[in-house]
This record gives sequence, C-alpha cells and structure tokens, in this order.
Amino acid sequence: MQKINSGVTAPKGFLAGGVHCGVKTNNTAKKDIAIIYSEKPCTAAAVYTQNKVFGAPITVTRRNIADGMAQAVVCNSGNANTCNADGVEKAEKMCILAAEALHLKPEDIIVASTGVIGQVLPIEPIEKGIAALAPIISREGNLDAVQAIMTTDTKPKEEAYEIEIGGKTVKIGAMAKGSGMIHPNMATMLGFLTTDAAITTPMLQKALKLAVDDTFNMVSVDGDTSTNDMVSIMANGMAENPVIDKEGANFDLFVAVVKEICTSMAKKIAGDGEGATKLVECTVTGAPTIPLAKAIAKSVITSSLTKAAMFGADANWGRILCAIGYTEGDFAVDTIQVDISSPKGSILVCENGAGVAFDEDKAKEILLEDAIHIEIAMKQGDASATAWGCDLTYDYVKINGDYRT
Amino acid sequence: MQKINSGVTAPKGFLAGGVHCGVKTNNTAKKDIAIIYSEKPCTAAAVYTQNKVFGAPITVTRRNIADGMAQAVVCNSGNANTCNADGVEKAEKMCILAAEALHLKPEDIIVASTGVIGQVLPIEPIEKGIAALAPIISREGNLDAVQAIMTTDTKPKEEAYEIEIGGKTVKIGAMAKGSGMIHPNMATMLGFLTTDAAITTPMLQKALKLAVDDTFNMVSVDGDTSTNDMVSIMANGMAENPVIDKEGANFDLFVAVVKEICTSMAKKIAGDGEGATKLVECTVTGAPTIPLAKAIAKSVITSSLTKAAMFGADANWGRILCAIGYTEGDFAVDTIQVDISSPKGSILVCENGAGVAFDEDKAKEILLEDAIHIEIAMKQGDASATAWGCDLTYDYVKINGDYRT
Repeated sequence: MQKINSGVTAPKGFLAGGVHCGVKTNNTAKKDIAIIYSEKPCTAAAVYTQNKVFGAPITVTRRNIADGMAQAVVCNSGNANTCNADGVEKAEKMCILAAEALHLKPEDIIVASTGVIGQVLPIEPIEKGIAALAPIISREGNLDAVQAIMTTDTKPKEEAYEIEIGGKTVKIGAMAKGSGMIHPNMATMLGFLTTDAAITTPMLQKALKLAVDDTFNMVSVDGDTSTNDMVSIMANGMAENPVIDKEGANFDLFVAVVKEICTSMAKKIAGDGEGATKLVECTVTGAPTIPLAKAIAKSVITSSLTKAAMFGADANWGRILCAIGYTEGDFAVDTIQVDISSPKGSILVCENGAGVAFDEDKAKEILLEDAIHIEIAMKQGDASATAWGCDLTYDYVKINGDYRT
Repeated sequence: MQKINSGVTAPKGFLAGGVHCGVKTNNTAKKDIAIIYSEKPCTAAAVYTQNKVFGAPITVTRRNIADGMAQAVVCNSGNANTCNADGVEKAEKMCILAAEALHLKPEDIIVASTGVIGQVLPIEPIEKGIAALAPIISREGNLDAVQAIMTTDTKPKEEAYEIEIGGKTVKIGAMAKGSGMIHPNMATMLGFLTTDAAITTPMLQKALKLAVDDTFNMVSVDGDTSTNDMVSIMANGMAENPVIDKEGANFDLFVAVVKEICTSMAKKIAGDGEGATKLVECTVTGAPTIPLAKAIAKSVITSSLTKAAMFGADANWGRILCAIGYTEGDFAVDTIQVDISSPKGSILVCENGAGVAFDEDKAKEILLEDAIHIEIAMKQGDASATAWGCDLTYDYVKINGDYRT
C-alpha cells in the first residue's frame, strides 16, 4: 500500500473540477460547485446520515444508486437543500442538469449539498455553474473539486493510495469536507471516494461500511449529527484487476486501503474541526467489547469539558474519567489507567481509577502540541477502538454564533 | 402556594451557615464549607448521579441515609473528593467532624463535595472550618451557606415557599449550585432542600423523585453528567401538619411545591451555566410519549450549534431541526412547527418541517433578550416536556480551558 500525492482523480478514468457559481453569495472567490466524473460506468455504494431530518439530496442519491451504479458526483456548498418544501425537486434538477452536461442519465448522478439548512436552494447559479464546469473537468481538477465543497473547513482534505491486486495497480482516491455539525452516526460528513478497481456493488458497499464504521463514524467535532452526511464510493474497473466479487485476500486488501484512506480523512476532519487548534485522538484498549470501547472513546472526545481542557493545555484528567463514567454500558472504573501523550512525550495521570502524582510542567509541555493522544487502558478484556476529535475553542463559538448571518 | 424571601432556613428548626476554611486556596474571600442543621431529626431522601465514576461523598451519604433519617448537611466546594484512593475515608472523616461539632451521630450527616476531580482532599482546613462554623450557624445563615457551595456559579441560588397542609403552615426551602459539568441523569448537581413538613421517608423519597425527574433532570449546561450530582431533602416535622404517609391531596400539594421550587432552581442553574449570557427554555408539545418529548427537548438545549446560535442571537432554526432529527426514537418530522419567543415577542420559523419566511430583524430583537423560549409543536400526540439550558459562549471556553490551573 503506497500513498500518492493526489486525490479523487488518481484512479484511471476520473476527472474532476470546481468553480464559483454563486450559491455562496458573500464571496465570489470561494468555489461552490464540484463535479467528479468517471469515463466509464461505476459500481457505486454509499452510507448516509441517520438523522431523521435529512437533506433532499440524500433522498435523491439513495434512489439513484439503488441499482448499484453511478458515474458522476455533483455537489454544491453554501446551502444544504434541507428542510425546504421544494428540496427534492431541486436535487432532481441538479441531477438533470449534470446529466445533460456530462451526457449521462440523471439516475447515474450522486448529488450532495452542504451549508445552511432551511434556505431555498437557488437553482440559477447551479445551472450556470454546471454548464461552465462540465467542459473543464480534468485529471488535474481534484483540488478545485475539494475546494468547492468546503464550508468552514480551513484546509482541503484529499488523499490517494495505490495497491496491487492480481498483478494490476489499483488506485483509490478520496476527498472530504467536515468542520461543524460533525458527529456522524453510521454515515458521516461528505466524503467522496473513487477507485479504478473492478469490484461488484455488494462487495463495494460492504467494504465502504466496514471502513466507515471504524473511521468517519469515530469522529466528533461537536456532537451534532448532521442532516446531510454522506460518504460514497465509485469504482470504474479501469485498473482491470480480477473482479472482486467475494471475500478473500483481494477483498481484504481492498478494505484495508479503503480503511487507511478513510482513517486519514477522518483525522483531517477532526483536526480541522470548526475553530480547532488541535487534533485529539482517544484510544481505548482492554475493553470488554468493541462497541463499549467505541462508546467510551467517543464519549471522551465529545465531552465539552475535556475539549475545553485540551484547548487550555490543562491535564484535567478528572474530566476524562467523568466522560468515561457516564458512558452507557457495564464496566468497572477501578482498573482504569489513563496516559496522555504527544510528540513531546507521555505522562501517566490516572491508575486504578484514581489520580497519581505527575509533573505538571511536563504535562503542559505535552499538551501544548497540536496532536494529543489520550490512552485509556481498561484492563477488562481484549477489545479496543480509536476516536478522533478536537478541542473546543473561542473560534468554535465565534464561527457558530454568527455562521448564518 | 406562596413564595417567601428566604432559603434553607425558612422552615422551622433549620439553621445554616458557611465560612472560608481553605480548601479553595486561591481566594480567601470565597467561602468553601457549608452546614445545614435541623434542631430535630428529619426523615430524609436523596437522588444521586448515574455516572459510574462517582464521588466518595455519594458512597458515604447513600450509606448514612439508608435508614431514612438525617439531621445535617456538610458540604465543601473547591474539591470534589472524587477519584481519590482515600476518598471514602475523607468523606467519613467529614461526617465524624460535623457530628462531633453538632452533637449528632456521623450516620445522621449528609456529606457532599464539589470542585476539581482527582485531587486529594485536604482534611485540615475542613476540620478547622467545621469547628469554626458549627457554633455560628443561624436562622440568618442561609445565604452564607449557599455562597459556600458555589464553584463557577456567579449567583447564589436559593428559594423558599409556604403552603398550608391540614390547617398548618408548612415551609420548604432550597439551595443549589450548578454551573459546569451539568447534564444530570436521574439525579443532578447539588441541591439541598429543607422542610418542616411531617412526612414519612418513603413519601419524601417519592416526592423528591417525582419533582427531580421533571426539573433538575431536564437541565443541561454542557452535556457532561457530573460525578458528584446529588439532591437531598430533609423534613423535620416541626410544622406539626398531619403526617403525610400516603398518596392523596396533601401529598399532591407537597409534590407540587417541591416541583415548583425545583423548577425555579433548575432555571436558575441553567441561566447561570458556565459562561452563559442567557437562559434557553425548550418546550415540546404534541409528542407521542413523555420520554420522547423529554428526549427532544434535551437534545435541542444540549446541541452545541444551537447553543452557539443563541449566543449570536441568530435564528438559525435549521440547527434546532437537526437536533430534533438526531434524537433517538420513532417520530415524523414533517408535521413539526417551531416558534421562538422572548419578552420581545414570538416568531414562527418552521412549519410542517420546512422553513417559512420570517422577519430577520424581528427575530434578532427577540433573540437579544436574556431568556429565550423555543416551542416545538410536534402534532403527533398529547405528551409534552420542558428542558432548560443556556447559550455556548466564549466565557464557557475560557472558564473551562483553564479551570484547574
């Protein structure tokens, strides 16, 4: 498995691009519509938000890839097209426009929107944008595409890997956006994966689900599960590897690379959470079960008090214990050990569920780094899990106190 | 039912007080130990945090009031006496010291601590403090007692009411502290209630539980369920009313006043949440069931994004819909109506699950008030519930980014 310096256009046959069309009215320099296109039809799979309030694009995408096939993604930022009476109609219109411009059928389009909830989506700029964008999508358009789906993200998030399957080089690329309203349940924020692997739809769906559960679904920025979360993957088979149509070594290899790329994107999303100054990674080991390990890791990285302490570089481990303690489930607390580490070193703060003396200056030095690792050893079993979050900062409040106006 | 201008010493036979003893080392002006004392033995009841990591004082109090009786409360602030290897021993010592000073038995003491988790509780200042405080507790000491249990609270929270039961005047008083780590589950933050009512322990426990479920347990400041939450009530019978020993009109009247006083304290705790600039009340009506109404109301007031929007006086109602949507349970969203109101008026923002046009200037004017009411009409049943929270502000981050050091 090798990392390559690219994104969604790394796999053979994929083109992408992004432009400003005017959904974002406040800044003409900000791109707001993206297209990802495959020269050949793809098997396709997706996972979606579990929020009962969900965006119109999710209704339409779900319907469009029911046949397991897709060939392009169209996504706007600046407006979520959610909680609008005419939302589904507008999402369908986006598919028709993209299909016309790309010479595809509307049912081959994955459509997504991100931005403010509950404001009517203006279709005119999207119509103009798609018409302008479709002719200029290219192998080099990956970065433009990522930039066009950013909202309060400060960094574009993309990634690509290369593996060998059955003697053929297979590439997989991804782009994602995160930032706020990030606390996925089953599916997550927006993530679009592309690959030139040959793989059937059922195996593709299975691979995506396996990867997302341990990666995107283990990220939380603010505990708010968005209405528009979606991660999709399209596989066009142009790598000409033996088709992956069942479990086995090739499938495992494929899952491993999807998981790797999703882990990387998940960490980028957490570290670039709204207002975040640092990535906080929490690993739970020795748990009785994997679901409990996951629940505890997520509880810790979701705790507002722990997040604020991380911002202040304060080794207030009592808040970590508190967040462990209110996790639902059956476990003991008197065996728990907590260590906090970063590139500056590691420090033991809690043993057998109680505090131990530690060097506060050393702790401060460790916590001033921009990636912090909280290690929780439960000593009650063999299960483990990792979750990713960020600190809670003044800027989170600033961004969200006045995001819409 | 009549409100009176007092607190825990309003009922006959109760004395209280608070002094600085030195648990809070950083500010000698801040009181940090409180005593509430009844001249006669009391029936007593309490509810506790459901966090699996819980303070040593909870272990000891639970044991002490197992017989349904108590006569005094001793509570320190500045240190939670939680996650300490010697915690139970120290909590027992506090009971012994208070019992000696008040000429009671250690088993008659309700003990509580609030403050930092995981730092060893220094017993010397507490010993000195109890010795100094016990001789000076008085009918006028209620405010000193409340001040002594405050941590990051900015306002002392106390309340008293008077009712008539069987021709006798019965009084009930309360004091509480809240601020951060406030997201109770079953029990809550610290609340101490006193009454001169004559009531048996089982009926007292039942009344407290009924009141707390709809009041303290419907408050959230930050989604963090504390390790030390406790609400207790002591009834000394000095009002000489016919003993309340079963359900009926007198019990209902007693429950009503306990609920009234707990509601009032809950709103004070929410409005004075860490860093809060405003109280946010969320009422859900027309829900299929009461648990679902409660869950939705709590989901909305707990949402970081909604809280930040309230801080910014931004009528970003899509975040309210989002928080409704990720509440667990079975319900439809397409019938939901949302109104936002304050003393400046009321505005409809969402109907049938979709946005409606509204006057942004009017919305701003409404949201700039310091108490905001979010009304969610589900139109799917007859159940309703109310929850209380606050906005998410720079000061919350400031307080919690550097609370311990």
